[in-house]
Amino acid sequence: MAHTFPNDEAAMRRALELAGRGLGYVEPNPPVGAVIVDKHRNLIAEGFHERFGGPHAEVNALVAAGDRARGQTMFVTLEPCCHTGKTGPCSRAVIEAGIKRVVVAMRDPAPHVDGGGLSELEAAGLEVVVGLCEREARELTAPFVTLISEKRPWVHAKWAMTLDGKIASRTGHSQWISGAESRQVVHELRGRMDAVIVGAGTAAADDPQLTARPPGPRTATRIVIDSGAMLSLESKLVATAREVPVLVFAGEKAGAERVAALQAARVEVIQLPVDGASHLDPAAVLEVLGRRQMTNVLIEGGGGLLGSFFDRDLIDEAHVFVAPKLVGGKDAIDPVGGEGLATIPSKSQFRDFSIKQTGDDVYLHGQRSRDWIGGPVTAAD
Amino acid sequence: MAHTFPNDEAAMRRALELAGRGLGYVEPNPPVGAVIVDKHRNLIAEGFHERFGGPHAEVNALVAAGDRARGQTMFVTLEPCCHTGKTGPCSRAVIEAGIKRVVVAMRDPAPHVDGGGLSELEAAGLEVVVGLCEREARELTAPFVTLISEKRPWVHAKWAMTLDGKIASRTGHSQWISGAESRQVVHELRGRMDAVIVGAGTAAADDPQLTARPPGPRTATRIVIDSGAMLSLESKLVATAREVPVLVFAGEKAGAERVAALQAARVEVIQLPVDGASHLDPAAVLEVLGRRQMTNVLIEGGGGLLGSFFDRDLIDEAHVFVAPKLVGGKDAIDPVGGEGLATIPSKSQFRDFSIKQTGDDVYLHGQRSRDWIGGPVTAAD
Repeated sequence: MAHTFPNDEAAMRRALELAGRGLGYVEPNPPVGAVIVDKHRNLIAEGFHERFGGPHAEVNALVAAGDRARGQTMFVTLEPCCHTGKTGPCSRAVIEAGIKRVVVAMRDPAPHVDGGGLSELEAAGLEVVVGLCEREARELTAPFVTLISEKRPWVHAKWAMTLDGKIASRTGHSQWISGAESRQVVHELRGRMDAVIVGAGTAAADDPQLTARPPGPRTATRIVIDSGAMLSLESKLVATAREVPVLVFAGEKAGAERVAALQAARVEVIQLPVDGASHLDPAAVLEVLGRRQMTNVLIEGGGGLLGSFFDRDLIDEAHVFVAPKLVGGKDAIDPVGGEGLATIPSKSQFRDFSIKQTGDDVYLHGQRSRDWIGGPVTAAD
Repeated sequence: MAHTFPNDEAAMRRALELAGRGLGYVEPNPPVGAVIVDKHRNLIAEGFHERFGGPHAEVNALVAAGDRARGQTMFVTLEPCCHTGKTGPCSRAVIEAGIKRVVVAMRDPAPHVDGGGLSELEAAGLEVVVGLCEREARELTAPFVTLISEKRPWVHAKWAMTLDGKIASRTGHSQWISGAESRQVVHELRGRMDAVIVGAGTAAADDPQLTARPPGPRTATRIVIDSGAMLSLESKLVATAREVPVLVFAGEKAGAERVAALQAARVEVIQLPVDGASHLDPAAVLEVLGRRQMTNVLIEGGGGLLGSFFDRDLIDEAHVFVAPKLVGGKDAIDPVGGEGLATIPSKSQFRDFSIKQTGDDVYLHGQRSRDWIGGPVTAAD
C-alpha cells in the first residue's frame, strides 16, 4: 500500500477511480471515493461507497485509517453529508477523526446537503478546498444529479450500426451487426441499469430478453413502450416476467383485455395519455421512473423510440458500436428517427467522447453537454 | 544512417514505408520501396520509386549504395521488373550491382513481369525469397493490381456522418458535420487521387469545388455523374473548369443544348447509356476511367451514387468520419443508399480497419476484403 501521490490531482483521481467502483451498486446514492494522505501525500487509507445502505466512502476510509487519520488530509469526490440517513453524517465522522484538511471535488447538490457539510467542516476549523477535478466528479455523478434536480433518470442510449449508419437492413435483419466483444460491453451496461427500455416494434421484431448475461450488480426492469399493449404473450419477455420484472407503458386507451392478459402473466402495465399519433410522452414515462428512484436507464431502440427521446432532448449519454460492415439501402433502418434537427450542430454535443476498439468494432461513448453539469465544455477543457 | 534491423521483417517494413511515400506521385505505376543491408542487417542504402517516369526503387537504392551493394541483400516490396520501359529493367541492375540475395514482398502481376523478374534473378544465381509482408504489400498495391486485372480504378468512398449515421439533416443541411482536422484528411486524400466524383444532387446541393487545398501531388479530375447534364453553368465546378478539369458523365439522351453549353464552358462531357431509371452504369463509368489509366478515384457522395456503386460491389476502400453529433430524423439522409443488402454480413467486410481521432471526430478507414488481394482475411491474420 506504500504509495505517494505526486500531486493533489493524482490523489483526487485515485478517489474518483475508487468512486467508480460503486457504479451499479450504490444508486440512487451517488458513487463516492475518499483517500487519506499525510502531509507528504503518502497514502494512509482509502475507501468508497460500496453499496446502497452501506457505509459512505469517508467512513470506510476513516475506519481503514484508524488513529492514523489524525492531523491528515482527506480527498473526497463529493461533499461529505451532514444529515443522518441510513448512516451517520460523514461531516461529523471526519471532524471526530481529527482530519485537518478536506479537499472536495464537488459540492453535493442534494437539498439536504447543498453546502451544509462544507459549512460544518469549516465551522469545526478544518481547511476546506472545493473544486479539484470537479469536471470528472460531475460526469461521474451526472445521473444522481439528474435524478435530484430533474426528478428523472439519466438516459443512456445504445445502438450498434454498420459503417454506413444502419441498425438493420432493408428487410429488417439486424443480427448481428456488432461482435461478441461489443455485446459483452452491452451486457455489462445492462447489469448496472435500473431499467432497459425498448419500443414495441423492437420487442416484436427481435423478441429480446434484455437481461444482463452474466448478471451485474443490479437487475434492470425490462420496459416496453407499447401504446397498444401489443407485447406478445408468447414473447421471451412475458415468458420470463415472473423471474425478472417486465413493465409495459401502454396508452390509456389500450385494449382492456390485452392489458389484463399481460397483467395475468405478471407484467406490470402503466397506462399514460397518448398524443394524436398514439405516441406516449417520453417525459411522462421518465417521470414515473424517477418517482421509483431509477437513476440510470438504457434505451436499446428502435429508431422511432430513440428519435422520440432525442426530439425532447432526453438522451444524456450515447453508447454506439460501429461495425466494419456496409449494408447500404435507402430503405435500411436508421438508429435515431423522430423529427430530428433541422440543421447540423456546429460543434460537438458531447462533453467527452471516448473511442475504444471492441473486437472488430469501434465503441464510441460520450455524455451529452449539459450546462448544469458544471457548464459547457470549452476549448480549454 | 547507421541502423541495424532486428530481423528481416523490420527491413521489409522499412521498404514498405518508403514505398508509401510514392503514393500519389507514381501512379499508374505501383509504389515500390527497396532497402539494401549487409549480412548483419546493417542498413547500407535505401530508395523508393519517387515519381512516375523517374527511376525505380531498386535503382535508387543501388545508386545510393554504389560499390557497397556487392554481395549484399536487397529487400524490395514488389518483384523487380524485367522489361525496358521508361527506365531499364531492374532485374538487370540488381544482378550487375552484385546483389546476392533478394527478398521480395510480392510478385508483380503485370503481364509483362509476372514472375519474369524473379526468374532472371534466379537464373543469374541470386538467392530469391518471395512473400515476406505480402499482405501489406498487396494492400499498398491494390489500386495498381485492380487497374491491371480489372481495367478499372480502385474506388475510395468518403463520407462524414453524425453519430447517428446521417450525412445531412432532414432539410438537407450538411455543413459542417466533420471538423477542420477531418476535412484536412479529405484534402490530402483528394491530392493523391486521379478523380473526385460526386452525383448530380450533391453538385447541386453543395456547389462544391472538389479541389485539394493545399494542392497535393496530383490534380484530380472533378467528375459529376449527371445523367441529365444538369450541372449548373453557374456552379463553382463549371466556373473553374478552365483551371482544373471537369468531366460530366451524362446519359445518351441528355439534352444536346445542355451538353453543348457545358462543352462551351470547357467541361468535358461523355455520354453513356442509362437504365430504365435514367441511371448510368457505375461499371461503364469506371471502364472509361480505367482506359485513362486512372488508378485511384474518390467518391464523395451523395448517398444515391454511393449506393449505386455499393450495389455493384464497386466500393474498394472506405474513409468514414464520425462526428460527435446527433441530428436524428427519420427523413435525414443516409450515407449509402441504393438497394442495399438483404441481410447484415456475418463478419467484417474489411481486411483491415484503422481507427484514428481527427480533432473531435473519429476517422475509420479500411480496404474491402477482396479474395484476389492475397486471399481473404483469416482469424490468424
